[in-house]
Amino acid sequence: MKAGTAELQSASPGEEIVGRINQLAAISETSEHLARIFLTREHHAAADLILGWMREAGMLASLDAIGNVGGRYEGNRPGLPCLMLGSHYDTVRDAGKWDGPLGLITAISCIADLHRRGRRFPFAIEVTGFADEEGVRFASTLLGSRAVAGTFNERVLADRDEAGISMRDALIEFGLDPDHIGAAARAPSELLAYIELHIEQGPVLEAQNLPVGVVTAISGATRLAASLTGMAGHAGTVPMALRRDALTGAAECIVAIEELCRTDPGGLVGTVGYIHANPGATNVIPGQVSFTMDIRATTDTHRRKAVADIVRRVESIAKARKLQLQVDVTHENRTVPCAPWLRSQIAEAIAGEGFPVFELPSGAGHDGMAMIDIADIGMVFVRCRGGVSHHPDEHVETADADAGARVLLRLIENFRPKEAGGAARS
Amino acid sequence: MKAGTAELQSASPGEEIVGRINQLAAISETSEHLARIFLTREHHAAADLILGWMREAGMLASLDAIGNVGGRYEGNRPGLPCLMLGSHYDTVRDAGKWDGPLGLITAISCIADLHRRGRRFPFAIEVTGFADEEGVRFASTLLGSRAVAGTFNERVLADRDEAGISMRDALIEFGLDPDHIGAAARAPSELLAYIELHIEQGPVLEAQNLPVGVVTAISGATRLAASLTGMAGHAGTVPMALRRDALTGAAECIVAIEELCRTDPGGLVGTVGYIHANPGATNVIPGQVSFTMDIRATTDTHRRKAVADIVRRVESIAKARKLQLQVDVTHENRTVPCAPWLRSQIAEAIAGEGFPVFELPSGAGHDGMAMIDIADIGMVFVRCRGGVSHHPDEHVETADADAGARVLLRLIENFRPKEAGGAARS
Repeated sequence: MKAGTAELQSASPGEEIVGRINQLAAISETSEHLARIFLTREHHAAADLILGWMREAGMLASLDAIGNVGGRYEGNRPGLPCLMLGSHYDTVRDAGKWDGPLGLITAISCIADLHRRGRRFPFAIEVTGFADEEGVRFASTLLGSRAVAGTFNERVLADRDEAGISMRDALIEFGLDPDHIGAAARAPSELLAYIELHIEQGPVLEAQNLPVGVVTAISGATRLAASLTGMAGHAGTVPMALRRDALTGAAECIVAIEELCRTDPGGLVGTVGYIHANPGATNVIPGQVSFTMDIRATTDTHRRKAVADIVRRVESIAKARKLQLQVDVTHENRTVPCAPWLRSQIAEAIAGEGFPVFELPSGAGHDGMAMIDIADIGMVFVRCRGGVSHHPDEHVETADADAGARVLLRLIENFRPKEAGGAARS
Repeated sequence: MKAGTAELQSASPGEEIVGRINQLAAISETSEHLARIFLTREHHAAADLILGWMREAGMLASLDAIGNVGGRYEGNRPGLPCLMLGSHYDTVRDAGKWDGPLGLITAISCIADLHRRGRRFPFAIEVTGFADEEGVRFASTLLGSRAVAGTFNERVLADRDEAGISMRDALIEFGLDPDHIGAAARAPSELLAYIELHIEQGPVLEAQNLPVGVVTAISGATRLAASLTGMAGHAGTVPMALRRDALTGAAECIVAIEELCRTDPGGLVGTVGYIHANPGATNVIPGQVSFTMDIRATTDTHRRKAVADIVRRVESIAKARKLQLQVDVTHENRTVPCAPWLRSQIAEAIAGEGFPVFELPSGAGHDGMAMIDIADIGMVFVRCRGGVSHHPDEHVETADADAGARVLLRLIENFRPKEAGGAARS
C-alpha cells in the first residue's frame, strides 16, 4: 500500500462510492430514466440523503438559500478559511449517474476517512453539492455555484419552467426564500481554493489508458447561429447551374469548419450540432437553412481567432454561392483557467498514487466557471467509459472511482494554501 | 397578325385565360391560401365551373367516375378517335394558381375559338381536367390520369386521408361510385395523342428569354433515404481526431452529390431536400443523420448510372469516416419520353408563331406519366416567373399565356395523326 492512503479504513473507497452513486441514482423523476431536476421532490430527497452522509462524515451540514447542500469539517481551530470541494447533484434528463455525484460523493468519502482518523488541518474543509449546474428546468446553468459566488442574477427568478412555474414560486414551494438567495454567497476570504473531481465526459483519458488527469482549464465556448438563404425550387426543374441551394452551401460550411478544427494544432474543437433545412421536402431545393456552431479552445485568444476564421470562411462560401448569410453569437463563455499552483498539487497527488501525470482541458462546463469569481480553482478528471456522458450508458469503473478518491484524499492531506494561513485571493 | 391565329375572335386569348385562372383560383379551401383538394366541396365547385366553360365552348361535357372533367368536340363525323388535351385542376396546399389550370383553360379557350369559327377536323378533340395529379389528400399522385389510362390501382381506395376518411368513402360522399372507376378508362384506339400545356415550374425558359418550349421527356426520378450513424458526443470533450460525427459525414456527401451533378454534361440534377441530425443539440456531436436524395435525368440509363455513382461515393465517405450507412430507394419513376412526332409538330407550331424553338426536359412529374400507357404524349411548356411554382408567387405573364394559347391552337389546326385516320398506338 502506498503512503498517504495506508490509513484508509476500507480497502476500496471506490466500492462505497459506487454504492452511494447507485443510491442517489434511485432518486429520479421516473424509474424509466434518470432525471433529478432543480427544486423538485427528487431534489429534496437527494439533499436529505447527502446531508445525512455529510453528517455521518463528521461535518456540520445544511441546505443553503438556493438549495445547495453544504458540509463543513473544521480545521485545527474553528472559523478557518476553507478548502472547498464540490460538484453538482442535479442531472440532465435521461442522464448518467456519475456526472456531478461522483465528485460530491468522493469528497464526502474523503472527509469521512479523515474524520475516522481524527485528522485536522490548519484549514477547514467544506463540501458543497450544487443544486443546479445543468440548467434543465429554467434554461440557466450554474445556478447553485453562482449563488455561492455571489453572482446569481436575480432576474432569473422570473424565468418560468415548461409548466409555466416561475423560479421564484418553485423556490417558495421547495421551502426556500427567493429574497434571501444573497445569503448563499461566500466571501473570497473564506475560501483557500475550490477543487472539483468530475468524470471527464470525453474519451481522452480512456485513449491514454489513464484513470485520472489534471485539468488545465475549462475551455471557453462560443456558440453561433447561422442562417443561409438562397432560393427554394423544384428538385426536378431547376438545373444545377441556376440553383441557390442553401443546404449545399451549409454542407460546404460544415465540411470547412471540420477541416479548420481538424488541422488546428492547438486542440480547437468545432461542432455543428443542429441543422434545419426549409422547407425540408424530398423534392424541394432548400431555400433556407439554419445551423449552429459550437467552437471551443483552451485559451480565449485561440478561440476568438478561430471564431473569426470560421466566420470569414462561412462568409466567403455564402458570397460565392450568392446566399444571404446571417450569423449571430448566441452564447459566449470565457476560458476559465485552473490555477497553476493547484494544478501542481493535483499532479503531485496523482504521481504520489503511482499514476502518470497527464494534463487535459475540460471541454465541458463545470461549477468552477462560477467559483472562479471567488477562488482559484482546480479540477481532477476521472476516466469514463467510451467518453459517454449525459446518457444512461455513462460509466466509471470502480477501480477508477477508487483512484479518484485516493488522489483527492492525498491532495487534501498534502494541501498547501497559496499563501500560508491566508486566502488565495483577497 | 400571323397566319393561323388571324381568325381569333379576341385579340388576346391570354386575357380571357388569365381571367378564368383567377375565377378558378377563387375556389379554395380557405381564403388565406389556395388549396383545391381531391373530392372536396371545392373540387365539386371547380368541376361545375369548368364543365360550364366546356359546354360554352361547344363541347359535350361530363364528370367521369374518378371526378375528372371531360369535354368532347366532335370531328367531321361523330365517333372519331381524338386528340386529347388536358391538365389537372387540383392544387397543392398554399399553391400557385397556374400549375394545372393553365393547360386546361388554354385548351378550352382553343376549342371555343374553333367552335366560333365552325372548324371541324378529321379527328375529335377532347379536353380532360384531371381531378388529382398532386396527390395531396391520399398521398398517391396521378389518380385522375391513371383512371383514364386504366392503371388506377383499386387498393388505394382503402387509403385514408389525415382525417381518417378512406378514398372509397370520399368518392361516395362526392357522389361517385368507387366500384365503377374502371368506367373512366379509355382504350388506346380512342386516342391519337395526349398533349399537355403546362407552366415550366423551373427557370430555364426565363433564362432563355422565351415564352414557350418543347418538352423532350418527363425526367425519371429516383428518391433515396440515407442514414449515417456515428457516435454522439459532447461538443467540448471529444477531440476532432476521436470523433465519428454523422453530420460532417452527411455534409461531405451533400457536397459530393452537388459536385457530381454540377459536372455532369447531361443535365443531371440531384437534390438533398431533407436532413435531420440527432440529437440535434448545439452542444452535442450528431450521432445519427438522416437525409434524402432526389436524382433526375432525362434518360433512365443516365439516371441509373448517376444513382450508382452517388451511392458508391456516399459509401466511400461513410467507410472513410467509420460511419454506418443505410441507403434505401424510396421511390422510382421511369423517364417518360415525349414522342418525336409530337415534338416535331409542337416545334412547328412554335416556329409558326414566330418564336425560337427550344427543347427542354420536364423535371417535374405530369399526367403524361400515366397517359403514356394509352397514348403517345407531347408537352408544351410556358414560362413562369423566376421558375417559382407550388407557391403563391407562381406567375405567368398574360403575354406568355397568350403565346401558349396561340401555339396550342396552331398545333391543333395543323395536327396530323401519326398514322393518318388511325390510332397512334394499337
